Amino acid sequence: MGAGQLARMLAEAASALGVWTTVLAERGDDAATGVACEVILGSPTDASAIAALAGLCDVITFDHELVDLDVLRGMQQGGAVVRPSPDTLEFAVDKSFQRAAFSAAGLPIPDHVVLGGSEAEDIRRLRAFAGGLGAPPVVKLARGGYDGRGVCVAGSLEEAESASLAWRRGGSVVVAEAPVAMRRELAALVARRPDGETVTWQVVETAQVDGVCREVLVPGSLDAATEAEAEALAHRVADVVGLAGVLAVELFDTAEGLLINEVAARPHNSGHWTIEGSVTSQFENHLRAVLDLPLGATDLAAPATATVNVFGSEPGDGRFDLAAALANADAKVHLYGKVARPGRKLGHVTVCGTDPATVREDAWQAAVALGTSRPEQTMGEPR
Amino acid sequence: MGAGQLARMLAEAASALGVWTTVLAERGDDAATGVACEVILGSPTDASAIAALAGLCDVITFDHELVDLDVLRGMQQGGAVVRPSPDTLEFAVDKSFQRAAFSAAGLPIPDHVVLGGSEAEDIRRLRAFAGGLGAPPVVKLARGGYDGRGVCVAGSLEEAESASLAWRRGGSVVVAEAPVAMRRELAALVARRPDGETVTWQVVETAQVDGVCREVLVPGSLDAATEAEAEALAHRVADVVGLAGVLAVELFDTAEGLLINEVAARPHNSGHWTIEGSVTSQFENHLRAVLDLPLGATDLAAPATATVNVFGSEPGDGRFDLAAALANADAKVHLYGKVARPGRKLGHVTVCGTDPATVREDAWQAAVALGTSRPEQTMGEPR
Repeated sequence: MGAGQLARMLAEAASALGVWTTVLAERGDDAATGVACEVILGSPTDASAIAALAGLCDVITFDHELVDLDVLRGMQQGGAVVRPSPDTLEFAVDKSFQRAAFSAAGLPIPDHVVLGGSEAEDIRRLRAFAGGLGAPPVVKLARGGYDGRGVCVAGSLEEAESASLAWRRGGSVVVAEAPVAMRRELAALVARRPDGETVTWQVVETAQVDGVCREVLVPGSLDAATEAEAEALAHRVADVVGLAGVLAVELFDTAEGLLINEVAARPHNSGHWTIEGSVTSQFENHLRAVLDLPLGATDLAAPATATVNVFGSEPGDGRFDLAAALANADAKVHLYGKVARPGRKLGHVTVCGTDPATVREDAWQAAVALGTSRPEQTMGEPR
Repeated sequence: MGAGQLARMLAEAASALGVWTTVLAERGDDAATGVACEVILGSPTDASAIAALAGLCDVITFDHELVDLDVLRGMQQGGAVVRPSPDTLEFAVDKSFQRAAFSAAGLPIPDHVVLGGSEAEDIRRLRAFAGGLGAPPVVKLARGGYDGRGVCVAGSLEEAESASLAWRRGGSVVVAEAPVAMRRELAALVARRPDGETVTWQVVETAQVDGVCREVLVPGSLDAATEAEAEALAHRVADVVGLAGVLAVELFDTAEGLLINEVAARPHNSGHWTIEGSVTSQFENHLRAVLDLPLGATDLAAPATATVNVFGSEPGDGRFDLAAALANADAKVHLYGKVARPGRKLGHVTVCGTDPATVREDAWQAAVALGTSRPEQTMGEPR
C-alpha cells in the first residue's frame, strides 16, 4: 500500500529476490508505479481498493502510515496477511496512543499531555503543563503529521494555544510535549520477523532542518554507550509494538539520556544509507521480514557512509544534471522518478568510504548538483 | 532491446538512477517485463517494433545479440542513438567477422579457419586445418550460438566434418578452431563511454560445465601478471570495437598466454558479482556508458566474492525455497522471475567476504537450496 519512493526502493529489492510486487497507488505517476510489477489505482483508505490488493497478494505491507486501521483490521479478520499488523501500525499512526503505550512500557519519551477534551479543559491542561515546563510546549497533531508538518515548535504559550485550538477545532487530537534540549538527533533501525528474530543496523546521526531530514551520517559522532542504548531501545520498541518488518526509531540525545521522538513501522529515510552501506538494505530486510524469511546480515560495508537527501529548489521537468552528480565516481545517486517542486523530496545520494568528512562532502556535492540547496548548518558547527 | 534477466537487472539499476526504461520483449512474461517502466511486445528483428521503441527512447541498448544489424544500421541512420553501435555489435554477433578483425588488430585468438564456401572447398579447408593441428578442431556457428549451443567440441575429424556440414547445409557460416589446452577460463569486464573513458573491473576466474558458466570466483587464482594482461586485452578490445557500454571478454589462460574466446558487448553473466562485489555494478555502468554519463568506481567491495548460477533441475511453478537459500545471512539471492525448467538459468547467488573458500561454499549452498545441482568438479580438483 502506497507507491512513493519507499515502495519504489522496496520494488527494486523485490525484483532482485524474484518477488512479485503489486502497488496500490493514488496516482498513475507515483514513484513506484514504473518499477512495481503491477499497479492498482485507488486510495489507501478505500476498503474496496484494499480488497482488490489483498486478492492479488500473499502479504500486504506499507510505505506510509496514512491508513485506516479499522479497514485493515477488517481485512486481517478476513484472512489477509497484513505486516506490520494494524496493531503495530497504530503506534506509528497515532501519537497519543503511542505515547500512552510507550509510557506504560517504561520507554523513555518526552513529558507530554494529550489534548482531546473540551476547549476549556484542553486550554486548562495545556497551561498547567506549560507552567510546569517553564517553556512553551511543542504541539503536534496526534495523526497525519510528517516531515515537520503537523508540528508547531511554539515561541510562546499563546502560539502553542492557538495552534492547539486550530487543530482541535479541526477535529484532531493534539499532543503537547516538553521541548527537548538535545545534543543531536539519532536514528536506530531494526528489522523483526513475526517469530521475533531481530536484527539492527548501525545507529546513525541525522540532521533535521525545519523538521525535515537533510543528511544522515554513519556512524556519526556516537560514543559506544549511546549507541548500545539506542540499539537496545530499538529492540524494546520492536518487541512492544509486535513488529513484523522494518521499524525506525528517531531519538533525541539529551544530557539525561535518549528520548524517543518518532517511530515509523516501515523503511525510513534515515535508513537509505543501508542500500550501499550495509550487506543487506532496509528494503530487502523489510521484505524478508514481512515474508517471514530469514533476515540478511546488517554489517557495515564501509567504515564511513553519508547520505544526503535531494530536494527540489525550483519547478523542474523531471530531468536532472546526472552528469554533474556522477562526476564523483563514488557517488551513488538515487532518484525517485519525480518532477521537481520546491521542497519536494526527489532522491538521495550515498557515498561510502573511509573518511567521514570526505564522504559527507562528496555526498553534498552530488546532491547540490542535482538541485538541492545546502544550508549553512545542519549539525555541529556552521560550515 | 530484449527483456531477459540482463534487462531485468539493468531496469533495477535504472530505477535507482531515476532512468525510465522501455523494453522490447518477445513475450509478456519475459524476465524484465515486471520491472521495466514500459513494455513493447515484438521481435528484436522486426523493424517496425524497433521503430516503435526508438520513438519512445533517447538511447537504445541491448541484453542479447540476436539482432538484425541491417535494421539497426537503418535506425541509426534515421537518427536513433544505438549503443553499443551496430558496428560494435557485429563483433559479438558474427564470429567470423570478429576473428578476422581481431586477427588483423593483432589480438590473440585461437588458430581458426572460416568455412563459408562450397561443400567440397569447406571439407578440403577443414581437413587441411585439422591436419596442421594434430587434433580434431572445435567447430562453431559463426552466428547465434550461446551457452554451449552452436559449439561442437568434436572427438574426431569425422565428427567435426559432419557438424560443419550440417550447419553449412542449414545456411550458416562455420568457424573451425584449434582446441585450446587451457589452464583455466577467465573473464575481463570493461565499460567505455562514447568518448573513450574506460574502466575495468577485477578480472575473474569462471567455471564452465558443458559450455555453461556455473560459477565465478573473484579474484580467483590469478597471478598479477595474468591479471594485468587480461585487463590490457579488455582495454584493447573495447577500443578495437569502438565500445559504448559494457563488454565482457572471455579468455582462455594457456601456457603460451591468454587467448580471446568470446566477447559480449553487454552486461555478462561473468559480471553479476559486481552488483554486491564492486562499488558500481556492470548494470549501472552499462547504463552510465550508453547514456554518456561519467562511469562509476569499480573498486572491490570485499576481498573475496563468489557467484554461483542457479539452474532448474526439474519443472517448477515459479516458487523457490527462499527460506533455505537465505538461511545464510550473507547470501545475496537474485531470481529472475522465471519458471523452472531443467537447465534453464533462473538466477544467481553472490556471497562477499574475506575467505575465498568460505564465500564459494556459501554461494553453492544457497544455489543448491534453490534447486541447482552441483557438479563434482567445476574447476581445479574434484570436491
